[in-house]
Amino acid sequence: MTESTQQPVPSTATSEPLRILITGSAGFIGSHLVERFLNEGHTVIGVDNYISGQRSNTELFQEHPRFTFIEADVSYGIPYEGEKLDWVMHFASPASPPHYQQFPVETLMVGAQGTQNGLELAHAHGAGFFLASTSEVYGDPLVHPQPETYWGNVNPIGVRSCYDEAKRYAEAITMAYHRSRGVNIRIIRIFNTYGPRMRPDDGRVVTNFIHQSLSGKGLTVYGDGYQTRSFQYIDDLAEGISRLMRVAYHLPVNLGNPDEYTIMQFAQEIKDLIDPKAEIIFNDMPQDDPKQRKPDISLAKNLIDWQPTISLSSGLGNVIKLFID
Amino acid sequence: MTESTQQPVPSTATSEPLRILITGSAGFIGSHLVERFLNEGHTVIGVDNYISGQRSNTELFQEHPRFTFIEADVSYGIPYEGEKLDWVMHFASPASPPHYQQFPVETLMVGAQGTQNGLELAHAHGAGFFLASTSEVYGDPLVHPQPETYWGNVNPIGVRSCYDEAKRYAEAITMAYHRSRGVNIRIIRIFNTYGPRMRPDDGRVVTNFIHQSLSGKGLTVYGDGYQTRSFQYIDDLAEGISRLMRVAYHLPVNLGNPDEYTIMQFAQEIKDLIDPKAEIIFNDMPQDDPKQRKPDISLAKNLIDWQPTISLSSGLGNVIKLFID
Repeated sequence: MTESTQQPVPSTATSEPLRILITGSAGFIGSHLVERFLNEGHTVIGVDNYISGQRSNTELFQEHPRFTFIEADVSYGIPYEGEKLDWVMHFASPASPPHYQQFPVETLMVGAQGTQNGLELAHAHGAGFFLASTSEVYGDPLVHPQPETYWGNVNPIGVRSCYDEAKRYAEAITMAYHRSRGVNIRIIRIFNTYGPRMRPDDGRVVTNFIHQSLSGKGLTVYGDGYQTRSFQYIDDLAEGISRLMRVAYHLPVNLGNPDEYTIMQFAQEIKDLIDPKAEIIFNDMPQDDPKQRKPDISLAKNLIDWQPTISLSSGLGNVIKLFID
Repeated sequence: MTESTQQPVPSTATSEPLRILITGSAGFIGSHLVERFLNEGHTVIGVDNYISGQRSNTELFQEHPRFTFIEADVSYGIPYEGEKLDWVMHFASPASPPHYQQFPVETLMVGAQGTQNGLELAHAHGAGFFLASTSEVYGDPLVHPQPETYWGNVNPIGVRSCYDEAKRYAEAITMAYHRSRGVNIRIIRIFNTYGPRMRPDDGRVVTNFIHQSLSGKGLTVYGDGYQTRSFQYIDDLAEGISRLMRVAYHLPVNLGNPDEYTIMQFAQEIKDLIDPKAEIIFNDMPQDDPKQRKPDISLAKNLIDWQPTISLSSGLGNVIKLFID
């Protein structure tokens, strides 16, 4: 069940052309996968209902001859009637706390019914199923850094549970389809990722700090600012995803940047890049906010010879440049 | 959101007649609730698809004027068209490891779609929604005994996760409907329960040991037998459920017997009652089997003045008597 390889593997960049359906194609991460796969010569079918995705992310590719788009809520089915798929990649979900707390039931559904609809579609096509899970399955971790074998510390009834438990469920049902129906699966646990095309109202720390700095407002820090996060640039994540598609490994793989920063260090980095005089404003910590989170990426290193290559200052520079342009 | 009372409350035994829909009515616990509520003068609608429920548990009540039965898989909808309900009680799920591991996808679905269908029905009727959750949400606990505030230690991708994660998801979506749609909810975490009408092939320790003793076979112990369990008699559980229905408390409540026995002590108790000469056969521990589990029932004591009153030897005596009759 858990075949693995210690050999470096080629990414999708060198594979024969594939037909790939991506749910959440208009989301931040989804749209970068669409872009990458189109550039590599693959055919891409995007699916989104725009609950948190952005229409501008569909418009980017709408003239591309190998891109088609289906507007649909995948929790109620994936209305794809086309040729045989090679991959179903399930990236649809509200992912930032302000969004999933605004849509708790929809977030739960896209983790359960949405994942199952993707698995059924993959099963029907004999395609691979690629699940975007999250470091949120580790909750407020008691083990640091977090290896994939850590079972997590999640409050099942807290205000974040609509997302965390939905993703844990998504992993469980993905494993169930693999074990009982033989679906060829991949599961990644994505740690904090940033880059171009994040929603301006994403509500997470990267966009918040950049917007606040650019607009001359103070930077809002929740709690004492000593909680840590790791920040991965989107291109590093896309490379990891692409490589994992080529390896027959069916258990979860962490993809994140292990360079750990406190929120305060991060605020300082953004201040330095934009406005060294920006103030920092301290607010109360939201309920169940994790105090620290950092990926153990040994598995990805061994399995797909992957590690992040883009530094925080370089990645942030790219994002800020786009905001300013 | 979390009103509570320190006053003893009356059980459903003293309430005005209610109309109660119970999913999983042909299951072990469901059938005892049907019996109790009918005896108290309430109207009961049972729903089951017999994936693990038993037809004999429906036949018991089919002549009763206040009982109706709907054969349906609640994961695909609850086809109830009758008068206004007071309660929707969601007790449908395979619950023993051999059953849920045989039906992993169905178990996941009844936790997600099944729970949601029950919540929607309750919402449409302005009825209360009562979720049967489980001590399995604590997984292999690192805190002992387990209070409701413990977040658990569950392997999201293990062979038990189809049940454990389904129930954690069920709690999360129940809280989401309470918070965002105002549904009047109850959540109980049921610890090991035994009594008449357990399936003979239930696969859990009580029925296994009794069957093995009665048939002159050795008693099968997994691992070294020093893992502990608490065993609650079904009538104690039903009393706790009945009382909780009368209290406006919306967070999870443990219902279980805190008297803790090792599996070896338990084997001895059953041997003494049936066949003191029975052998004990040791087998390997199944994957992710919890090493100990014991409820902290302080909350139920304070909230509904409840604690188990039936001793293990007395409860076991009742069950064994029925097997022998």
